[in-house]
Amino acid sequence: MKGLAMLKIGEIGWIEKERPACGPRDAIVRPLALAPCTSDVHTVWEGAIGERRNLILGHEALGIVDEVGDEVKDFKPGDRVIVPAITPDWETEAAQRGFPSQTGGPLGGWKFSNTKDGVFAEYFHVNLADYNLAHLPEGMSLEAGVMLPDMLSTGFMGAENARIGFGSTVAVLGIGPVGLSAVAGARLRGAGRIFAVGTRPAAVKVAKEYGATDIISYREGSTVDQILDKTGGAGVDAVIVAGGGPEVMMDAINVAKPGSVISNINYFGSGIGDQDIIPLPRVGWGYGMADKNIVTGLCPGGRVRMERLADVVMCGRMDPSLMATHVFKGFDRLKDALLLMKEKPRDLIKPVVIVEE
Amino acid sequence: MKGLAMLKIGEIGWIEKERPACGPRDAIVRPLALAPCTSDVHTVWEGAIGERRNLILGHEALGIVDEVGDEVKDFKPGDRVIVPAITPDWETEAAQRGFPSQTGGPLGGWKFSNTKDGVFAEYFHVNLADYNLAHLPEGMSLEAGVMLPDMLSTGFMGAENARIGFGSTVAVLGIGPVGLSAVAGARLRGAGRIFAVGTRPAAVKVAKEYGATDIISYREGSTVDQILDKTGGAGVDAVIVAGGGPEVMMDAINVAKPGSVISNINYFGSGIGDQDIIPLPRVGWGYGMADKNIVTGLCPGGRVRMERLADVVMCGRMDPSLMATHVFKGFDRLKDALLLMKEKPRDLIKPVVIVEE
Amino acid sequence: MKGLAMLKIGEIGWIEKERPACGPRDAIVRPLALAPCTSDVHTVWEGAIGERRNLILGHEALGIVDEVGDEVKDFKPGDRVIVPAITPDWETEAAQRGFPSQTGGPLGGWKFSNTKDGVFAEYFHVNLADYNLAHLPEGMSLEAGVMLPDMLSTGFMGAENARIGFGSTVAVLGIGPVGLSAVAGARLRGAGRIFAVGTRPAAVKVAKEYGATDIISYREGSTVDQILDKTGGAGVDAVIVAGGGPEVMMDAINVAKPGSVISNINYFGSGIGDQDIIPLPRVGWGYGMADKNIVTGLCPGGRVRMERLADVVMCGRMDPSLMATHVFKGFDRLKDALLLMKEKPRDLIKPVVIVEE
Amino acid sequence: MKGLAMLKIGEIGWIEKERPACGPRDAIVRPLALAPCTSDVHTVWEGAIGERRNLILGHEALGIVDEVGDEVKDFKPGDRVIVPAITPDWETEAAQRGFPSQTGGPLGGWKFSNTKDGVFAEYFHVNLADYNLAHLPEGMSLEAGVMLPDMLSTGFMGAENARIGFGSTVAVLGIGPVGLSAVAGARLRGAGRIFAVGTRPAAVKVAKEYGATDIISYREGSTVDQILDKTGGAGVDAVIVAGGGPEVMMDAINVAKPGSVISNINYFGSGIGDQDIIPLPRVGWGYGMADKNIVTGLCPGGRVRMERLADVVMCGRMDPSLMATHVFKGFDRLKDALLLMKEKPRDLIKPVVIVEE
Repeated sequence: MKGLAMLKIGEIGWIEKERPACGPRDAIVRPLALAPCTSDVHTVWEGAIGERRNLILGHEALGIVDEVGDEVKDFKPGDRVIVPAITPDWETEAAQRGFPSQTGGPLGGWKFSNTKDGVFAEYFHVNLADYNLAHLPEGMSLEAGVMLPDMLSTGFMGAENARIGFGSTVAVLGIGPVGLSAVAGARLRGAGRIFAVGTRPAAVKVAKEYGATDIISYREGSTVDQILDKTGGAGVDAVIVAGGGPEVMMDAINVAKPGSVISNINYFGSGIGDQDIIPLPRVGWGYGMADKNIVTGLCPGGRVRMERLADVVMCGRMDPSLMATHVFKGFDRLKDALLLMKEKPRDLIKPVVIVEE
Repeated sequence: MKGLAMLKIGEIGWIEKERPACGPRDAIVRPLALAPCTSDVHTVWEGAIGERRNLILGHEALGIVDEVGDEVKDFKPGDRVIVPAITPDWETEAAQRGFPSQTGGPLGGWKFSNTKDGVFAEYFHVNLADYNLAHLPEGMSLEAGVMLPDMLSTGFMGAENARIGFGSTVAVLGIGPVGLSAVAGARLRGAGRIFAVGTRPAAVKVAKEYGATDIISYREGSTVDQILDKTGGAGVDAVIVAGGGPEVMMDAINVAKPGSVISNINYFGSGIGDQDIIPLPRVGWGYGMADKNIVTGLCPGGRVRMERLADVVMCGRMDPSLMATHVFKGFDRLKDALLLMKEKPRDLIKPVVIVEE
Repeated sequence: MKGLAMLKIGEIGWIEKERPACGPRDAIVRPLALAPCTSDVHTVWEGAIGERRNLILGHEALGIVDEVGDEVKDFKPGDRVIVPAITPDWETEAAQRGFPSQTGGPLGGWKFSNTKDGVFAEYFHVNLADYNLAHLPEGMSLEAGVMLPDMLSTGFMGAENARIGFGSTVAVLGIGPVGLSAVAGARLRGAGRIFAVGTRPAAVKVAKEYGATDIISYREGSTVDQILDKTGGAGVDAVIVAGGGPEVMMDAINVAKPGSVISNINYFGSGIGDQDIIPLPRVGWGYGMADKNIVTGLCPGGRVRMERLADVVMCGRMDPSLMATHVFKGFDRLKDALLLMKEKPRDLIKPVVIVEE
Repeated sequence: MKGLAMLKIGEIGWIEKERPACGPRDAIVRPLALAPCTSDVHTVWEGAIGERRNLILGHEALGIVDEVGDEVKDFKPGDRVIVPAITPDWETEAAQRGFPSQTGGPLGGWKFSNTKDGVFAEYFHVNLADYNLAHLPEGMSLEAGVMLPDMLSTGFMGAENARIGFGSTVAVLGIGPVGLSAVAGARLRGAGRIFAVGTRPAAVKVAKEYGATDIISYREGSTVDQILDKTGGAGVDAVIVAGGGPEVMMDAINVAKPGSVISNINYFGSGIGDQDIIPLPRVGWGYGMADKNIVTGLCPGGRVRMERLADVVMCGRMDPSLMATHVFKGFDRLKDALLLMKEKPRDLIKPVVIVEE
């Protein structure tokens, strides 16, 4: 079968591999819609997860079940499915402790294009099919659906972890597709004012549709100062960090009020200095005593998560397809889509590849 | 001054009283907009809080500050304010434990028309003005604003306590104004399907606008069966009990799935039998072991709560004025409004009295 | 193989059955130590879970692994293990929602002596061995260890759910072995005063060792009044309901202060009236508005839970063997132990059967 | 009156000041027992809170009420009281949001020896006496009691914020008196293994008495490596940071497992580099995605907190007087006690000054 792979750090290409084998509780799925992720770009061109040879990329997919193992009960060939980016081993120690995305080690629930071949292939393997696949609801567009596996799940987690209450004031730092999903998630948790920090017009437009009340641009000066100014010096109840280099945590903490949450959903692909650190501002952090709490996490995966996100969309609570700014038709266009993600033109939020209708 | 009072159980009337005195940290406020509450009806005609003589009724008000004590810093005469139904003593033991609405005993944060004269008067007294009043935002309509002190605060608490997550399935039992606020609150916490149980057309219409996806009528059969049927037998993740007699808890528990929350915002004005009980269904409750958890509370009060609800409204997250179906003009119409609440015609959700524009 | 079974409601006896078969991820275990539970008594003589024919009883065991399936990695024949009473299917919907004990329906994680044969047999079957067994630590006595599968896990859950903080005042209603474990659990969560309600001298003695500061006897008058009296009328922050008939919830709620938790770990084997209800006191419950929250649950199971309880014991935090008041030697004594549990002499807390040393 | 003051950065001395005035809700208290805190040392000799002139030091005291304002109800002259280090304005915005220690700005609940004169004086002022004082229980030793205002409250908060469950494995970095209190607090939350990192023999002895199961010394190599080694590479569920320079956060995060809490109770008196930062390790932090959550806070204050800590002690849950290694008699010895704290001899945990018996 054909797949779009990282050949080595800095290089991608189409390769041939054998169709994966199906265990008794697994499924083999072929793609229906695919989306490249910024982390595919990090993986290939920044070596974010280290060297990989001929690893098939991709972890955002809708699919059609092609084969299921003997013990699979709820899915059969031909079923249209949502495939979560994170497919935990649900029985394991970390899951029993309440951290399924960390099964088998840090970020261990992330398998596609990390510890096994990803979804950018004619066929891909899904572990624990009954528990890691969800049925694609009738009537959900592919452009909307393909945002669920990672963008919505991660962005919404950002809002969940931020402990937003009714009327909380929230700042979302970064309005790529994950940040936009966090904006939508913050509104769906009951936030009042939402400050969205970004400048790209396409993203700004969607941020407003998703509930941002104030758009903050770094071009107008310090984002921290602007938000402090607009809140009468108080700062915000919650910050969702959805982009930026290591120094973004300085801003995040400085803009949060005493008694607040800084919820990180940013993948820190690089740090500062020899020790490879992420800096926090000592004074802004209240010398470690201002109740500015930092919460992290990895995209929740699994069937129930996908079903619940699908319910949110099917009940009309928000429309993720607004983020699909660039839609390609055909599996062969996958490389173009990925390169577009790398290039990141100003009018891009998220490229999507529709493989089958 | 003039006030609309409960003369004794079963009887209301206009009375004359002295204008209340203002302590150093208090305010005297005159009404801008008022709303009668179902609990005023319970108080008078059902004797829900026991006998009261010449007690001025009412706890839902917007007002204009008329006088402030020496130590009040943030308010001055002429300020337009939101007056929460619940005005806690914020320093006390229960508040330090995290339960400000229970300061000074069960439901002790509820003072207006309970332990002191209420807001249905030409002037009324507010304790701890700096901490129990909030400025009425420019541009908020009086019809919207007067829903904040109790309806929104209580209904939203119902949603908060229900621990709704993204895509949770929720049933709201009862769609009076508190139930409708709970529907809106559930949507604003990220609920997926919301089953609203009620039949009155005016309320049904608003329930849909506020986010209900399914309307359930007891006229079509058992509400429990209908909801179980629509959820494939699973039941719901959260139930908000927003109306009904004591037996409503039977339905609430029977319709909840194992691992769920039943969030009560219903004032139980009467119980069953000599022991005056509220019954739970033993089997439906999983013999006490099915993780069906029952959470209660009294409307949160105080300044910060009102400011945050105001932010929700001013940011356009929902429009509480949709519930103001009957608007009266002039303080003199207050009695008509209260009697309308008692009579409860089918097209009524909430009567509002605009005292000044 | 031989097993002690419920022949039908009201009758037990030794029966012969085939040794259970071992699936690829399962284990077959033979008993090392066993303990009868009050719920075995309920099951047989009160028909609490309905009619069962020739169902092998028992769900509290330490064991020796006899056989493991092909896919089992962490256990091998000869390993000494703790077998949790509750053995969830960790992948399923309820587990993904955070309620593993409710997998597959209400109380569905409870399989032994409920939906399959129990542990009172020469061999018994454990599903998902790698995730539902734990190694028995070197140096843990069998009398201590056999308390972990249910007594400690349930009693400690009672304390966890009660949201006890440092210095919280707690009442534990009932001091059978689960109630005693709840007393120990309350102390281990940092409780201040702990009121233990019970009269049996053996239990009273252990309650004091486990941290009870006040023993309350119903013989001295109303337990509610006694506790209110000793708390200056305030009531307690948390109540753990660990025994009693359906009316125990009346006391539990009446003794709790506004802003409190009633944590139920009592199996309600019978209700009141035709509707089979559990009653709550309307006024004591603050008309549904006094923030008296009722939390329930079923004993947590699985490997991680057992490992953590074992750590508590091995670190010397409490000694569960104090509850093993009656120790029998030999598998053949199992029936005697169970009948003793039924008879419940005054000096009994918990009978234990040591099968092998 | 006489007081021991910071004359300027780097210099202390006895000064004369006027006895403070008592507002209507306040109290004037004279000291019964006092204790210097490491933060007094930071304040004076490291300028941690900036320049202060003639500021009376001290925030850890037991006292005797000397005068109360007109509105004070629960205290009268002669009462023996516990004075919390943190005395919030309980009505204010931050308190209504749930962060009383942050009232009036970051760390704003901390008033003694920060924004007003401290307790190292013949008389000191307590705001909101009814809500910020607690009665000293009969029978509590002064050496034990004087640990409550800050040491126990802060150390226990470290354990509370760490979300310790039954059997959690905890590392406490630093075993000064706050770290030792955190060890005791961790045990009182139900921790299993507790790794206490420190070397001073007096502290090591108390750490073991308070529940530490493993003592880790940096002299034996990297503390991170030692703890990872002792946990089979897994790391710990919770880290309490109770001492160290800015780089302690590197260790804290590296020793925590994916899915864990790092609970900080360390006052960071200095940072790294021009930007004055606290560094986090990018890789150890799982690139920001390993669910390693960082929780902070400032010592909880107020009456209820003190009463609850007193209950913990009076119920025999732990004995804080073990930390009082050096006891001075007489107000005049205060300077000696403070200088001893600065000097920090190896056998010191905490100096205490008994002013009156």
